[in-house]
Amino acid sequence: MRSVVWSNNCLTLLNQTLLPNKVEYIECNDWQRAAEAIRRLEVRGAPAIGAAAAFALVLGARELTGLEFCKFKHKLAATAEALRQTRPTAINLFWAIDRMLGVVNRLPPNTAADTAIAALEQEAIAIAQEDRTVNEKMAAHGAGLFTTPTTVLTHCNAGALATVALGTALGVIRKAWSQGNITGVFADETRPLLQGARLTAWELMQDGIPVTLITDNMAGWVMKNKMVQAVLVGADRIALNGDVANKIGTYSVAILAKEHGIPFYVAAPVSTFDFTINSGTDIPIEERCATEVTSLGGNCVAPAGVQVFNPAFDVTPHTLISAIITEYGLLQAPYQESIKQLAALRK
Amino acid sequence: MRSVVWSNNCLTLLNQTLLPNKVEYIECNDWQRAAEAIRRLEVRGAPAIGAAAAFALVLGARELTGLEFCKFKHKLAATAEALRQTRPTAINLFWAIDRMLGVVNRLPPNTAADTAIAALEQEAIAIAQEDRTVNEKMAAHGAGLFTTPTTVLTHCNAGALATVALGTALGVIRKAWSQGNITGVFADETRPLLQGARLTAWELMQDGIPVTLITDNMAGWVMKNKMVQAVLVGADRIALNGDVANKIGTYSVAILAKEHGIPFYVAAPVSTFDFTINSGTDIPIEERCATEVTSLGGNCVAPAGVQVFNPAFDVTPHTLISAIITEYGLLQAPYQESIKQLAALRK
Repeated sequence: MRSVVWSNNCLTLLNQTLLPNKVEYIECNDWQRAAEAIRRLEVRGAPAIGAAAAFALVLGARELTGLEFCKFKHKLAATAEALRQTRPTAINLFWAIDRMLGVVNRLPPNTAADTAIAALEQEAIAIAQEDRTVNEKMAAHGAGLFTTPTTVLTHCNAGALATVALGTALGVIRKAWSQGNITGVFADETRPLLQGARLTAWELMQDGIPVTLITDNMAGWVMKNKMVQAVLVGADRIALNGDVANKIGTYSVAILAKEHGIPFYVAAPVSTFDFTINSGTDIPIEERCATEVTSLGGNCVAPAGVQVFNPAFDVTPHTLISAIITEYGLLQAPYQESIKQLAALRK
Repeated sequence: MRSVVWSNNCLTLLNQTLLPNKVEYIECNDWQRAAEAIRRLEVRGAPAIGAAAAFALVLGARELTGLEFCKFKHKLAATAEALRQTRPTAINLFWAIDRMLGVVNRLPPNTAADTAIAALEQEAIAIAQEDRTVNEKMAAHGAGLFTTPTTVLTHCNAGALATVALGTALGVIRKAWSQGNITGVFADETRPLLQGARLTAWELMQDGIPVTLITDNMAGWVMKNKMVQAVLVGADRIALNGDVANKIGTYSVAILAKEHGIPFYVAAPVSTFDFTINSGTDIPIEERCATEVTSLGGNCVAPAGVQVFNPAFDVTPHTLISAIITEYGLLQAPYQESIKQLAALRK
């Protein structure tokens, strides 16, 4: 199960919209197809989107072979701009694109296009490889939070499918499970696109980790009945004050956790932090089309023409977050301080 | 749109599992088909279930024509017992059955079966007719809560489809709308069976009341963004202390409302109160089969064999409830007192 694979100048993406019923791969031989895959959520999850966008830029760069370097950079910037438009909320997309462009911008004038392309490919491979090691580090730090057998609730999919390998929140769960400190996982199905039912339940079952699927509106009742002792989710963007944008419904789960005295943890690599914005109010929230809500697997489940509100993400205020697990360790309140320290570390 | 119709010794039920795609009716010529309809949720909503069960008992009684009265009562009690088994949570089912059996038990010994059957039919018709007038009274009382233009969030379907006419929560909304004090309704889709998407949105659209459909996990974000100013739901059973059993997810919505300082109202007739239990912990919570969660309209949306937790209801503690709207007026805290007064009134 690998969500993002680069080999022989081709970006292969596991089509996550078809899981768990079909395991099918998409071969992206041009950047446009990769952009389409990001837009359609065929590849999703903040870190996986970042890696896919990096490889998409390599594909875009390869179309510029032979161009004079100034023109090369100009055209590459246009491709980067188009990739930026695919999805607005996850910061890893912009982070990966900026990192790739940085590589080109640091090359001397009159660099041959081929040299630039090779440098870009190397950087994209590094981004993907780093995501693996970053997830392993997060898993080790996060697993330390679980010292006694714990049942965890998670929302959406912050697993191997959302990253290059292992996962953020699910990486932590995998590690804690291997240490004997996870008794089970409750997975919110995560409407409208059911990433919890289709992806998280599938991933955990493949690893033999006991998972119980619930609809999103059961989370409160599960907590009330003391069936979970912790909540652990991923993130799509984190502001300087610790506010976390993540899949729609995360905010509600965080409030429910607070009400029941259950810790609420977020696992996210430093690439998910947006060091340019002060709070969650500055995070743009993607709204997606009504049919995601009104239909399911091709079946219409609502009256034709009904008005729909379909935000893909929400923002959980830092006050509801017990800790943020990063590859550099755990961040805790006051987040303004701990995130400032994180910003210094990553430089 | 009538959910429960009695005519020519036939109980006709609108098949709510097929809405909004198909408007199809089920003709129940025997009590077993009616029991099946309750079990399958072809008829659902506490008051509608009560009325359907009353007519089911008439159908059952008609099979006992010519029996000696003692035997008639004995066999009718067995039918009543089978009907009680169809669903465990909504109290109106038991209330209607007890009321029907009370009619027979008050008849003199050696009453002719035909006389008893006629009395039963009269009582079932009265139950249905009273549900109309009760809903009108609730609507009038409840609409008084809305004195300025308000957008309301509702969960599941507490509408005309859940009752004999008008609805409980939606009855209040219809009345307040007619008085110009409802600007719109947000309808939680209400997984797993989507009563909000399929029934509430449909009902409100038919009346021209502006409705916006959301997935259940969006309710918190809608509140955070100040898009609703009140929550209004129905109930399946209310304990003496004011704890309310209602469709799964209601409890979460109540916590979210409290967190955002939004009033949380429940609309329910006196027949929904269980005056024999002290608190919500005494209410049995129906668990339904996994396939309701793992599939949708015949499509599998989760991995085969995944473990599922599927409670059909939850209990909202009275501390989260701003007021309970009944046909006798509004109940407010302390509910122990106001419900005691209600018990005295209905006698």
